[in-house]
Amino acid sequence: MSIIVGKVVAELTREITPPDESWRARAQTHLDTLTKPLGSLGRLEDLAAQIVSIRREPLRAPVRKAVYIFAADHGVTAEGVSAYPSAVTHQMVLNFLAGGAAINVLARLHGVDLHVVDMGVDAEFDAVPGLLHHKVARGTANMLHEPAMNDEQLAQALLAGAALGREAAGAGVTVLAIGEMGIGNTTSASAITCALTGAHPALATGRGTGLDSQARGRKAAVVEAILKKHFASQAAPSAIEVLRCTGGLEIAGMVGMVLAAARHRIAVVADGFISTAAVALAVALEPRVQGYVIAGHRSEEPGHAILLEFLRLKPVLTLEMRLGEGSGAVLAMPMIESAIALYAEMATFASAGVSEAKE
Amino acid sequence: MSIIVGKVVAELTREITPPDESWRARAQTHLDTLTKPLGSLGRLEDLAAQIVSIRREPLRAPVRKAVYIFAADHGVTAEGVSAYPSAVTHQMVLNFLAGGAAINVLARLHGVDLHVVDMGVDAEFDAVPGLLHHKVARGTANMLHEPAMNDEQLAQALLAGAALGREAAGAGVTVLAIGEMGIGNTTSASAITCALTGAHPALATGRGTGLDSQARGRKAAVVEAILKKHFASQAAPSAIEVLRCTGGLEIAGMVGMVLAAARHRIAVVADGFISTAAVALAVALEPRVQGYVIAGHRSEEPGHAILLEFLRLKPVLTLEMRLGEGSGAVLAMPMIESAIALYAEMATFASAGVSEAKE
Repeated sequence: MSIIVGKVVAELTREITPPDESWRARAQTHLDTLTKPLGSLGRLEDLAAQIVSIRREPLRAPVRKAVYIFAADHGVTAEGVSAYPSAVTHQMVLNFLAGGAAINVLARLHGVDLHVVDMGVDAEFDAVPGLLHHKVARGTANMLHEPAMNDEQLAQALLAGAALGREAAGAGVTVLAIGEMGIGNTTSASAITCALTGAHPALATGRGTGLDSQARGRKAAVVEAILKKHFASQAAPSAIEVLRCTGGLEIAGMVGMVLAAARHRIAVVADGFISTAAVALAVALEPRVQGYVIAGHRSEEPGHAILLEFLRLKPVLTLEMRLGEGSGAVLAMPMIESAIALYAEMATFASAGVSEAKE
Repeated sequence: MSIIVGKVVAELTREITPPDESWRARAQTHLDTLTKPLGSLGRLEDLAAQIVSIRREPLRAPVRKAVYIFAADHGVTAEGVSAYPSAVTHQMVLNFLAGGAAINVLARLHGVDLHVVDMGVDAEFDAVPGLLHHKVARGTANMLHEPAMNDEQLAQALLAGAALGREAAGAGVTVLAIGEMGIGNTTSASAITCALTGAHPALATGRGTGLDSQARGRKAAVVEAILKKHFASQAAPSAIEVLRCTGGLEIAGMVGMVLAAARHRIAVVADGFISTAAVALAVALEPRVQGYVIAGHRSEEPGHAILLEFLRLKPVLTLEMRLGEGSGAVLAMPMIESAIALYAEMATFASAGVSEAKE
């Protein structure tokens, strides 16, 4: 690891402690007094207890929720790995700002503040209001031939994501979703998944936005060649090398945000394959991050299931989606908010005069 | 079938037509113009298309949502089939009216109108405001020894549920959730499941609100004896006989509401094991009801998975819940509402100037 990147990683991982298990136990004790059979709220009880353990305080509704969409382009699109032209990254950022994309609809419906971050889109956005400007470069280099980014770019992207996470925490956000937009970035996520978990590219490479079987096979071969190019000599490459060589600028931004969320004790909701790859990198850099993460959903990308298993994360939703943009994470928000509201607002057996279970 | 019940069933099943497949196809054509990869919203696209096929019109947000909780007591509780005393049915109805139960919290959070219906609670509610009074009897007879209800009671309960469904449709509700409260009613649902699907009581009987393994075994033996008592001589008992002999008054009310929902072309969201047993009975009475049903979630009760498979329904959520009260159905509402909002509000490729997939 270079000196500059090493300093940034040390700065972003210090003072992260795991969620507090004694608060989790107190939360479960409270849940057991509420007017329902013990454990009958299932995963919602787990979510409520997790968030209490993260916040180290009893839960109150309503919850301040935000989603950040990190956007960037990928040099590897030159290899024909996507069903869509890379100009779509730029076009979709404009669609986000105009309010017409899926994530806009979902964020409006579920009361989630939406922020769009240019981490490295291959276009100029000078005249565009409403965008968070953190462009590191106009896309990554083609990782089939060279590292996706250099040390300075990596450091800058990590710091930008972390700064946004810190700002969100300062603004009172307690549940933070991460999402992304970047044509070509499932190729990046597949390479990261293989490098971190040892999975074979044929198993960790999916159809992305809609490749046919033949094109998917070519994409898996590109991923295999990328791994050989950068990591052939290393049995277990470091997370930071994996990120620098095969990541995207949006992925590096998300890694920074996940680390900041843990540092500032807010829950972070992962979306699909690409954002979960960012979580896996953050956890590899600092394992204490793990307990701050909620898997919003399980996407249709085969590599996503591999990552969720690797991270031992159970997704809240399984809706056969494969859109990105933070859509699965924002859809999980009403479930998380339900867990918090149930915890905070339900009557107890004593207060409601309801008989408890027979011995 | 008695004359009185036959007339009611004929009345409630007439004029039910299946959802319109041409509208479903038009909905999918519209979904394919929206700024997202084809099919990438997964189950949400199926839900949007299903609701268009039910409504026979393009979808508009917001949606008017309601949940009805049908409450009743069960004579079979004399056999020790529940972890809670049957007085809890009454106590929980009071908790619903006071706003302290899980379903109150969820309905408030997700903007769902909540209605509580006394179909047959073993208590007097004369002085209680806010309750819908449709008491048919103070609980069912003990179905281990005699049919749970007589023909007049069955007819009355079916009509009451149907009238409420008609009123909801008249009030502009387009997505209607059903839920229940009734200590002992998982025993009823298990008996119905076995009678309709041929499943063995040992597989279709669960822990209910929290039985241990031994008590669960005794409950399965009770279910087996109930089936032997009423249906030993019949290879395939009729749905209406199954309902009369082994149902509950809240289950009969839900059957009436499901039939009315289909008649008035509104989507009906099933909750857990007991409400899905009501759906199975309604579908057995009139197969055209099937397309109007959305399975809100899959509960932990083993019989629920059997029913969902029998009905070929894929649950929206799987959160390891086993509470009832309509809680799983109301939790599915934000997903259904998301599907509708995405359909109604997303930009198209043409309107947003986004490039489509390469050929």
